[in-house]
Amino acid sequence: MVLVAARNPLNIGAAARAMSNFGLLHLRVVNPYLAAFREARSAVGASALLASAEEYKTVAEAVADCTLVVGTTAVRHRELQHPLRRLEYGTRLIRKQLGSSRVALLFGSEKFGLSNAALSHCHWLMRIPTCEENISMNLGQAVAVCLYELVRDAKAARPAEKVKRASSAELERITTTLLQAMRCSGYLDRRPIADVEERMRRLVHRLNLPARDAVVWLGILRQILWKLRSGKPPAG
Amino acid sequence: MVLVAARNPLNIGAAARAMSNFGLLHLRVVNPYLAAFREARSAVGASALLASAEEYKTVAEAVADCTLVVGTTAVRHRELQHPLRRLEYGTRLIRKQLGSSRVALLFGSEKFGLSNAALSHCHWLMRIPTCEENISMNLGQAVAVCLYELVRDAKAARPAEKVKRASSAELERITTTLLQAMRCSGYLDRRPIADVEERMRRLVHRLNLPARDAVVWLGILRQILWKLRSGKPPAG
Repeated sequence: MVLVAARNPLNIGAAARAMSNFGLLHLRVVNPYLAAFREARSAVGASALLASAEEYKTVAEAVADCTLVVGTTAVRHRELQHPLRRLEYGTRLIRKQLGSSRVALLFGSEKFGLSNAALSHCHWLMRIPTCEENISMNLGQAVAVCLYELVRDAKAARPAEKVKRASSAELERITTTLLQAMRCSGYLDRRPIADVEERMRRLVHRLNLPARDAVVWLGILRQILWKLRSGKPPAG
Repeated sequence: MVLVAARNPLNIGAAARAMSNFGLLHLRVVNPYLAAFREARSAVGASALLASAEEYKTVAEAVADCTLVVGTTAVRHRELQHPLRRLEYGTRLIRKQLGSSRVALLFGSEKFGLSNAALSHCHWLMRIPTCEENISMNLGQAVAVCLYELVRDAKAARPAEKVKRASSAELERITTTLLQAMRCSGYLDRRPIADVEERMRRLVHRLNLPARDAVVWLGILRQILWKLRSGKPPAG
């Protein structure tokens, strides 16, 4: 990642933090406004990364060993001399190259973005899909969003249920105990329900209970039932 | 979006800026550490959003009108009492609800995240897929990444070629002119190539030229050819 003419050391630190969050290692800095950027307190957990950042005088030197150079921009309509790609698609292209070659991702200064001179080193440009009403992002936030998308795992967008759900046997015990409690409490005398067993079973199934919650619910219901039966322990 | 006990006004401002970047409007703040958060200079382009942020004393009040409450956390292994979903999948679930009901997305304080009391109001939790080595993100950056993923367009990850490519006729003119220039320059006498026409045609096609670049290249080649022929204009 290459930060060109960044003004605020806090933003450089924040960029380093985001890199560390998403597993990137190599930060290059071209003409930072303040030399003190290496001490930026915003680089929480990324001070080593920031300390080893390489400093360059020109974009040409910073990207010399890279075979793909991608610039970032918020602008959509200016006379762009480059293909402009949305982040979702651009990062896909970058990932394809990453296995075989070095890719440089360029971010410009907070105020002006990348200069035309810096842009001329880019093969193409990438933009974050923001609202027309406010396209200007904070530098540290833009870096975080770009790197997140770069390491994003499309497979993870599909469900991967990890919470163990209650078994049918457990749900059946809850249903039975609930029915007994309903009978003992007089609920069914006051409000008779047709097909009450099936209805209550479906009601309990719709709770979609995690296994460990089912145990708790059964305990509560059994206690209530015990009390309803005036001290006689439940049969179920 | 609900920020619970955020300490740094700059982070609240940055969160507001990210909301404005990604088209969210309603910010709620529970017990901010400093009342001065409304003047945060970091809310570039989002001062109106920040000014209209609603302030609450408790999480319960802040989420009272929401039907889905999702907490964010960096922690993976603590005794989580909630289902924990990766951002890519969690935002998919949120999008499904957004059409019909209000969803609250909770962020905790910079130092401690969401307290257990705040977590108890959540239906489930969401985490940003960061590196194990540094899971702690800056609050403003975490908000930006979450909101980006929320409005992310999966369709945009597929190619949408907008640069007009050169036509076959244009590429053929370039190939022909190139071959003439190669002959005139004596290149082919020194390095004879078998099937030279086909080889050069493939070489030119591999350039994958945009239409407007093809015009430029043809102009350059024609000028070179003209000069090679000592002032005689090119036939092509």
